[in-house]
Amino acid sequence: MRRLAALRQRLLDLELDGLVVTSPENIRYLSGFTGSLGYLVIAGDAAEILGDSRYWLQMEAEAPAFRLMPSGPSHGLWALVAERIKALGLRRVGFESQHLTFDQHQRLSSALPPEPTLVATASLVEELRIVKEPEEVELLRAVASIAGRAFDRVRAAIRPGLRERDVAFLLEQTFRELGADGPAFETIVAAGERGALPHGRASDRVIQRGDMVVVDFGATAAGYHSDTTRTIVVGEPTPEQARVIEAVRQAQLASMALMKPGETADAVDRRAREALAGEEHAYGHGLGHGIGLQVHERPYLSPTDHTALRTGMVITNEPGIYVPDWGGVRLEEMVLITDTGPEVLTSASWEIGVG
Amino acid sequence: MRRLAALRQRLLDLELDGLVVTSPENIRYLSGFTGSLGYLVIAGDAAEILGDSRYWLQMEAEAPAFRLMPSGPSHGLWALVAERIKALGLRRVGFESQHLTFDQHQRLSSALPPEPTLVATASLVEELRIVKEPEEVELLRAVASIAGRAFDRVRAAIRPGLRERDVAFLLEQTFRELGADGPAFETIVAAGERGALPHGRASDRVIQRGDMVVVDFGATAAGYHSDTTRTIVVGEPTPEQARVIEAVRQAQLASMALMKPGETADAVDRRAREALAGEEHAYGHGLGHGIGLQVHERPYLSPTDHTALRTGMVITNEPGIYVPDWGGVRLEEMVLITDTGPEVLTSASWEIGVG
Repeated sequence: MRRLAALRQRLLDLELDGLVVTSPENIRYLSGFTGSLGYLVIAGDAAEILGDSRYWLQMEAEAPAFRLMPSGPSHGLWALVAERIKALGLRRVGFESQHLTFDQHQRLSSALPPEPTLVATASLVEELRIVKEPEEVELLRAVASIAGRAFDRVRAAIRPGLRERDVAFLLEQTFRELGADGPAFETIVAAGERGALPHGRASDRVIQRGDMVVVDFGATAAGYHSDTTRTIVVGEPTPEQARVIEAVRQAQLASMALMKPGETADAVDRRAREALAGEEHAYGHGLGHGIGLQVHERPYLSPTDHTALRTGMVITNEPGIYVPDWGGVRLEEMVLITDTGPEVLTSASWEIGVG
Repeated sequence: MRRLAALRQRLLDLELDGLVVTSPENIRYLSGFTGSLGYLVIAGDAAEILGDSRYWLQMEAEAPAFRLMPSGPSHGLWALVAERIKALGLRRVGFESQHLTFDQHQRLSSALPPEPTLVATASLVEELRIVKEPEEVELLRAVASIAGRAFDRVRAAIRPGLRERDVAFLLEQTFRELGADGPAFETIVAAGERGALPHGRASDRVIQRGDMVVVDFGATAAGYHSDTTRTIVVGEPTPEQARVIEAVRQAQLASMALMKPGETADAVDRRAREALAGEEHAYGHGLGHGIGLQVHERPYLSPTDHTALRTGMVITNEPGIYVPDWGGVRLEEMVLITDTGPEVLTSASWEIGVG
């Protein structure tokens, strides 16, 4: 209930009587409900979960602190949200403007009389999620550890003749054998020139001797996600392959050193870009992202995010170099911000050569 | 280009100069781009794809009929959408109001001068997707066949002592061995009293002799999805288990007979509900849903969907009975509407007893 209490304090600060929560991750964070459809209505003295018959038993089991308000076939979820806002006498009600679609907002406003005012709010719950509680850090550490051990096992099996897709399947299977629910996202295995696609999924391309291979992988369990990237070379790295990998590693280490309380997200990002200033093909994406109930969440290590880093944040650091028609390098760690500096949660072999 | 031409005709009918497409499945359907972030701007004589550096190579490779408009770090995607609307001189521009969030709409309108009018449109591309092209039917048939063969293999291995989760993993692994990209959705395996949760995911619950087990599974490949449900009994079914399964099967067959051109979605739904009128715990969810690039898409077999069925639609039929604290039964097929009536695309053993 610490989470609900913190949210209620934010509502008071913003002079809101209540909040309609529609993002599945925020619903899970606040209530424990893990299903894909349902909404919360939260006020100073009310905590309600609204859902249809498919989810009633699950809501009662997973969200015992919330009062279940059932919707029915003739009584859709949005009509029920409007009804609860009226029944609870809420006058200024926040909604999650980054999650609610234009249509859902129209549907909700048209089901309400003019009196309650709907107020667009952004990231109220996400702001709570940005600093992880100790139990959340343990869950992140556990999935990062599973993913790292899976990589180390599968790494030994990578050899010319395997398809990118085979490597991805082996990884995902090993995540499960080690106790994860499955992959946190579609595993990226991008060999040779395909490595220049920062989001190239695993394809049917056959891995060849000499290929540099970007492997970007994560496991998920209990709703939490990991995210790690390694770049390996099948056979003996050429001097240019080794040079590019080392340049990316140095940018990562230089910027990671700034991942401590008091620095800002954009300062970390700037440090990595400075380190790669001489590289024509340095990455155009962000340097990193928070990770937790979502794979990508606040804060973002990017020029436009000025968030001050705080103890308990968990953020990836993933610089890269992508050379069209040649290949790519990306290296990624999950970093926990602690009072004494960065702590790397990910673990996977750093050895470059395989096969 | 047939798809683009059909969409342009719809825009003419609605007196729209252009459309901003933001739904990933609609983007894939129109352009071929399979990535997760990018937008389309489509006008009478323009077809543009907008994306950031991570996706440029992929966009060029996958969406050759579209002109690539690159966004940059200092030039976000929404600013670029606004710029293209202005550059193309569009005055009435549709947006996908079921996909665009409230915030994205605000961001786009505030980046535009007052002159271009943003018009909320719903389901313009989804309406095109509702009738499958022959190539799409073949892709759906292929994933349904993989899923069915996987089920038949795994079915033989189901026995007391396995966890629900083990069955789900075996199924998903077999999908891949048979050539699928992976599961179409989180596989449901719900044994015993957990079967009364219509969306109960596979858990650590150990399967026992006598359990009735609901297995709801699908495979995905090339962007298309399958969806099948079988209910089995571990050991000899009790008379009540057999009776409930048979009641659901009869409701499915009676309603499936109506899945032909000229009938409406709600009429099919009504027929199944009539067949189960005597059952206290008949399903509260919809009877079925279209399936294609999304697992759930139009039309919906529900009291409120009056869509006339047409040749080429592919729709699930999935009645159920859920008895709290006792168990559940759901049976599901994917049905292709043809000129001569329903054709079942799914295939998986109907034998009830296992183990």
